[in-house]
Amino acid sequence: MTTIARSVSYHPRTGNHVDGPAESAPAEVETAVAAAVEAFPLVAATPPAIRQAWLEAIARELETKADELCALADEETALGDPRLSGELAKCAASARFYGTVATSGHWVGALVDTVPGPVPTELRRANVSLGPVAVFGASNFPFGFGVLGHDTCSAIAAGCSVVVKAHPAHPRLSFALAELATTVLREVGAPDGTFGLVSGFKAGLALVDAPAITAVAFTGSRRGGLALVDRAVQRERPIPVFAEMGTVNPVVVTPSAAAAGNASAEQVAAGFVASFTLGHGQLCTKPGLLLAPEGSGIAEAVGTLISRVTLGWLLTQGIADSYRDGLARLVDAGATALGEGKEGGETGLAAYPAALRVDLDTLQPGSFLLEECFGPVALVAEYASFDDALAAVARLQPSLAGGVMTSGQDDPDAAAAVETISRQVGRVVADGWPTGVATSWGMHHSGPWPATSRPDASSVGSAALLRFTRPVCFQNVPQAYLPAFLRDDNPWGLPVVRTGR
Amino acid sequence: MTTIARSVSYHPRTGNHVDGPAESAPAEVETAVAAAVEAFPLVAATPPAIRQAWLEAIARELETKADELCALADEETALGDPRLSGELAKCAASARFYGTVATSGHWVGALVDTVPGPVPTELRRANVSLGPVAVFGASNFPFGFGVLGHDTCSAIAAGCSVVVKAHPAHPRLSFALAELATTVLREVGAPDGTFGLVSGFKAGLALVDAPAITAVAFTGSRRGGLALVDRAVQRERPIPVFAEMGTVNPVVVTPSAAAAGNASAEQVAAGFVASFTLGHGQLCTKPGLLLAPEGSGIAEAVGTLISRVTLGWLLTQGIADSYRDGLARLVDAGATALGEGKEGGETGLAAYPAALRVDLDTLQPGSFLLEECFGPVALVAEYASFDDALAAVARLQPSLAGGVMTSGQDDPDAAAAVETISRQVGRVVADGWPTGVATSWGMHHSGPWPATSRPDASSVGSAALLRFTRPVCFQNVPQAYLPAFLRDDNPWGLPVVRTGR
Repeated sequence: MTTIARSVSYHPRTGNHVDGPAESAPAEVETAVAAAVEAFPLVAATPPAIRQAWLEAIARELETKADELCALADEETALGDPRLSGELAKCAASARFYGTVATSGHWVGALVDTVPGPVPTELRRANVSLGPVAVFGASNFPFGFGVLGHDTCSAIAAGCSVVVKAHPAHPRLSFALAELATTVLREVGAPDGTFGLVSGFKAGLALVDAPAITAVAFTGSRRGGLALVDRAVQRERPIPVFAEMGTVNPVVVTPSAAAAGNASAEQVAAGFVASFTLGHGQLCTKPGLLLAPEGSGIAEAVGTLISRVTLGWLLTQGIADSYRDGLARLVDAGATALGEGKEGGETGLAAYPAALRVDLDTLQPGSFLLEECFGPVALVAEYASFDDALAAVARLQPSLAGGVMTSGQDDPDAAAAVETISRQVGRVVADGWPTGVATSWGMHHSGPWPATSRPDASSVGSAALLRFTRPVCFQNVPQAYLPAFLRDDNPWGLPVVRTGR
Repeated sequence: MTTIARSVSYHPRTGNHVDGPAESAPAEVETAVAAAVEAFPLVAATPPAIRQAWLEAIARELETKADELCALADEETALGDPRLSGELAKCAASARFYGTVATSGHWVGALVDTVPGPVPTELRRANVSLGPVAVFGASNFPFGFGVLGHDTCSAIAAGCSVVVKAHPAHPRLSFALAELATTVLREVGAPDGTFGLVSGFKAGLALVDAPAITAVAFTGSRRGGLALVDRAVQRERPIPVFAEMGTVNPVVVTPSAAAAGNASAEQVAAGFVASFTLGHGQLCTKPGLLLAPEGSGIAEAVGTLISRVTLGWLLTQGIADSYRDGLARLVDAGATALGEGKEGGETGLAAYPAALRVDLDTLQPGSFLLEECFGPVALVAEYASFDDALAAVARLQPSLAGGVMTSGQDDPDAAAAVETISRQVGRVVADGWPTGVATSWGMHHSGPWPATSRPDASSVGSAALLRFTRPVCFQNVPQAYLPAFLRDDNPWGLPVVRTGR
């Protein structure tokens, strides 16, 4: 007699839990991968316009079922409204965006190059779909980086089949989204196995180990991401792991910005507090550190404003434990309280937001002050010399994003700040905050190690598809044997660049 | 009193050796890296047209010193003429090509994207130069993949400073090329530290460990490549290692190709033997396995032709030992002799070329028959069913390149062959041989693991520069603080794509 292990669905608002769906047995993982293997060549050979229609159907069904999906998501995440309904709407928009990218041909990058010579050589290069891929979504974006989020939709857009690992922070929502996807994809005629879901920790490891899986996309903690990176390296044939992990995202306020009216202490503090407490601080792009001029009043204003922020709930017991532990470790490392937000009812996984002050000199490699503390806490450091502030930024761990508040076009310090920050991050934001990642052509949601495991790749935007492709060069291959996107008759209608610039 | 360790310069034709240049002490490696760190921001900020002029000056000096460089290269490699003079000419042409790519802006991929909204968001994305990089060249291409080969020139073109590790198979040539580069770069006004050289095994490890090094490019054996991959993962901040290692590059002859006049047994056999003995078989693109129809006479013709190939010299004692060992292991694994070439004088590191016959069924994972044997040996397997031949190809380790000999546009088996091979390689060659890698826009010199450690990256062609860049998104950053290639006034004159397709 075997017992079926079940996932557990926790409710952050109350701390209660109910049984979630069953975890996947090893044979079920094998079945899911085998289906993805069978589907892959069919998905890859499907014209992008058809794949776009699949994604459009998913987007529409997400919108149709928005109310019930958001209610279920709120039970399991306590992220509330309008956050969850907004996230669902953006998730549907992203599915459509990746469909548009698929038909744009950007991801294919078809190039026809004729090399001169006595007998010219013809080199036709394009990015081909990689194979079945595994997706590990995030706790903090149950839609955006969930079962049907950026990774899944960009992989399908790029012609790959996908097996998703359900996230333990929202197992029931994961299964509901998987059922939605399976039903919709069947209805629109996508091959069986285009999408699959597995559940459970061991199932996730089996997925990474499966020889037929060709890439892993992950969004979440550094511990989780690095564990998958290590695991994938141990395979007989290592595969890329695109782990988006995130660290502290620093924002610097230049001296003239603090002096100018467009970045008054109250404005900067209000923007900072709103940004680092968004989603109760559970964002990989949370600004975790603000560097402001001494005497600007910004630190004090942050302290005042944070005390007005209401209590919120963290996503999981693990995150709640880490947050409390992290706050204590930040204080141990030398941070002192600027203020805390204690309003609201302290039930379930509730946690209070906090702002801490640190000395610039204590921001040194090895200090816990340089580590990400996931949740609604951020540090403020004041500087006497702007050069010292930039030197501190250069000592930080690289991040997904960083920001600079300037006094406009004539800020004498802004160019150096942008340059310094750009060496440390995947995205530099001027006169704004790093939270809010647009799903668009120019986005780069990535960053140098350890912000991600692959600084060259992006998990959001048009470049997200490239992770699930691989260039192949076809040398002197006759027309009849070329992939559709490299043939002269161009049946998919994707753009082709010809030799040279 | 300390003794200075010296490298040893071996001469394959005679087996003799002379003292080579001194190996680098730890402090010398630190100095080289520090100089590269200092140079990097200056190189990155230099307009591509200037970097192109630097590469042009290197190309011209290579051509000016061609005779003495080729003589030195021949002493250390025994690759002879016209091979070495041809390789030097191609090396100079490659330096110029990478200069052209630099000014084309292909590597920058500048994109300006305006995201609509109540307040539009402006996302400007481009590939920025990565930082100081380390280059480990190959034994078998003293110019093309040597000190001033594809890796070094594409890295400088991409705005990076470079520290090269001298190859122990040609230490004196490595130092001569380094002196040439240092002198030329100083003359044309490149920053000190744009280029540096270190020597010795330990110096190479120290280079990979150096915190300021941001990427490693390697061409060589699997053992060497994987050692660097492992080493780079152990760093506090892992960096990408672009290791081009190579395996067996299979070529299949379709049934109708063998039946057609344009691929007679003699023609196929002659092309195959010429390709796998080129450079005395010491090419990473050597076709190591030919799959031909039973009864086509191709195997027998290969056996006849190989016996007419003269003896040649292998590059190093290590390669010579591995080759002899590899031949024995291939026979142990079931291969039988089709023929050997024994003509020529057996001096120094001489080795005879050989063709072996194997049963299709013995090509199974785990067999030594699937391993690369570096040197002038290749296998021929005959098939009864073409499906079985393609199934065997799918069981091989992935390769840099693979080929298919077809009967032209109406070959009923060619499409399946191209499709199967394309899943296994970085480049599919039709009606030709995989040796000969054009330095051009459409080239992709790479392949799935273990052919390379980074199947998405290419070590030859316009894409080679991308290895030494990293995308950064600049969000709402005022004009004055943007990098040159993203500003509206576009001082570098590189192409910029605006939102959308």
